[in-house]
Amino acid sequence: MNFELQILGTNAATPAHGRHLSAQVLTIGKESFLIDCGEGTQFRMLKFQVKKSKINHIFISHLHGDHTFGLVGLLMTYDLIGRKKPLHIYSPEDLQAIVEIQLGTTLRFPLHFHTTDSTKSTVLFENSAVTVHSIPLVHRAPCHGFLFVEKERPANIIKEKIDAYQIPHTAIPAIKKGAGYTLADGRIIPHQELTKARTAPRKFAYCSDTIYSEAIIPLIKGVDILYHEATFMHDMLLKAEKTMHTTAKQAATIAAQAKVKQLILGHFSSRYSNLEPLLAEARAVFKDSFLAEEGKKISIESS
Amino acid sequence: MNFELQILGTNAATPAHGRHLSAQVLTIGKESFLIDCGEGTQFRMLKFQVKKSKINHIFISHLHGDHTFGLVGLLMTYDLIGRKKPLHIYSPEDLQAIVEIQLGTTLRFPLHFHTTDSTKSTVLFENSAVTVHSIPLVHRAPCHGFLFVEKERPANIIKEKIDAYQIPHTAIPAIKKGAGYTLADGRIIPHQELTKARTAPRKFAYCSDTIYSEAIIPLIKGVDILYHEATFMHDMLLKAEKTMHTTAKQAATIAAQAKVKQLILGHFSSRYSNLEPLLAEARAVFKDSFLAEEGKKISIESS
Repeated sequence: MNFELQILGTNAATPAHGRHLSAQVLTIGKESFLIDCGEGTQFRMLKFQVKKSKINHIFISHLHGDHTFGLVGLLMTYDLIGRKKPLHIYSPEDLQAIVEIQLGTTLRFPLHFHTTDSTKSTVLFENSAVTVHSIPLVHRAPCHGFLFVEKERPANIIKEKIDAYQIPHTAIPAIKKGAGYTLADGRIIPHQELTKARTAPRKFAYCSDTIYSEAIIPLIKGVDILYHEATFMHDMLLKAEKTMHTTAKQAATIAAQAKVKQLILGHFSSRYSNLEPLLAEARAVFKDSFLAEEGKKISIESS
Repeated sequence: MNFELQILGTNAATPAHGRHLSAQVLTIGKESFLIDCGEGTQFRMLKFQVKKSKINHIFISHLHGDHTFGLVGLLMTYDLIGRKKPLHIYSPEDLQAIVEIQLGTTLRFPLHFHTTDSTKSTVLFENSAVTVHSIPLVHRAPCHGFLFVEKERPANIIKEKIDAYQIPHTAIPAIKKGAGYTLADGRIIPHQELTKARTAPRKFAYCSDTIYSEAIIPLIKGVDILYHEATFMHDMLLKAEKTMHTTAKQAATIAAQAKVKQLILGHFSSRYSNLEPLLAEARAVFKDSFLAEEGKKISIESS
């Protein structure tokens, strides 16, 4: 099953230096999840050929415009292209009123708003493939990130072993769930011999916008990819604290403490046309740091 | 004085085929006027290097999202880059409430909303160079276009004549206003000999969105450029009437009857990836028809 992240916008507050506003698409199996929706998100989807029809759930971190102003345009487009499927939006309160006053019309598909509680981690959504948890963040508005955790999957059967021991198909479901198999002669073939080890569930964490907060570390422990905002360089720490944002060094510190596999920095201030110094600052603390690149697809493979 | 139009978006309802949403910038002298502001307008401004600081007046035709959803993002950007100058927005009622609920914060520059009356033509704005009139349109929401009329300028003095007749500077203002000059020997030098003829005031009319309406013809008579929506081809007339839009043939009919100098077609339906048939349809009725092209600058020269 694919587990693929595509970042559509990497800049904070306003477009600049060819960078756009916050929006990401995470595709897990047949379903895509939209995370934040800054102005122009639907244009970025067109540019990068994102399949809009695969999106049924939109997760909004907080109600600042650079994370939400693209929402109404996208909804209008869904309506125009004849969407019939329900669409679910998860966000801190008040978004419904903001959206409805702008639309000024009734959409021809069901739109469901789910108000989140940004003060604690809760399960926002789950399907057969993934569970989505909120990650409480500390910002100037009620705000949370999102943790996507792949569901544990059944063990993979080794076909050759099944054939060799002539195990009937009816026994397979139990083996997938962890059972061994008892042959006619009484010998027990252990589960481990019949299956490949289960892969660790894949995890992606999105943390934007937030002041430096170690409280998130237990929640994001060991994730495959941590996207963390890094609005400023560390020499702007006072500004970061005042505006409740994070520096590149701080984001890397979080990544190191949480022992994540990969850190992606994003939500860059327009003051930086060149982002290499932010990357260098982060890598000095956590070597597996990368800059978010708009449009690039990042797959997390089963380990 | 320059009088220059730059169209930023040409598509109706939703972005498609590389076309963007309604927004135009008209620059007259030192001042630029923004007309409509669909989602992504600030991105288009960046792309085409529109000087945002020259804009102090924004004219919104109606409150459909494809003409307004870019407004809040632009306002947020103005705030962020430290705008201090007042900004004026002219639109049918309710825009202020829609904008304020989204901003959720106080801007650090004065923002003035001017509610328009879409049922009759009124003067919305004037400065020393231009008068802006509304043009009542008929659409699914209260809607009007805009007519920009250059103010009559003082006659241009012919410097060589002033020198030849040794006319003192103190006499110049009266000559500019239409007077002749009486020499010491009693001879009268007529105004026409001392000045170049005044040029005709330049005019631009913006008409979107609207059903075919001959009522606008007296208002747009003889304009240098008429931008008129042409959402559909004429074989879609019933759809055009139902959605209160115009066909390319109808737009050309208006242009011909109003004897405008040039018609620019825009606000194209996403159903058309190739616009040449719309152009051909219009040109069959009015030969000086053109397709709106995003980013292209169109100067109206003094005649």
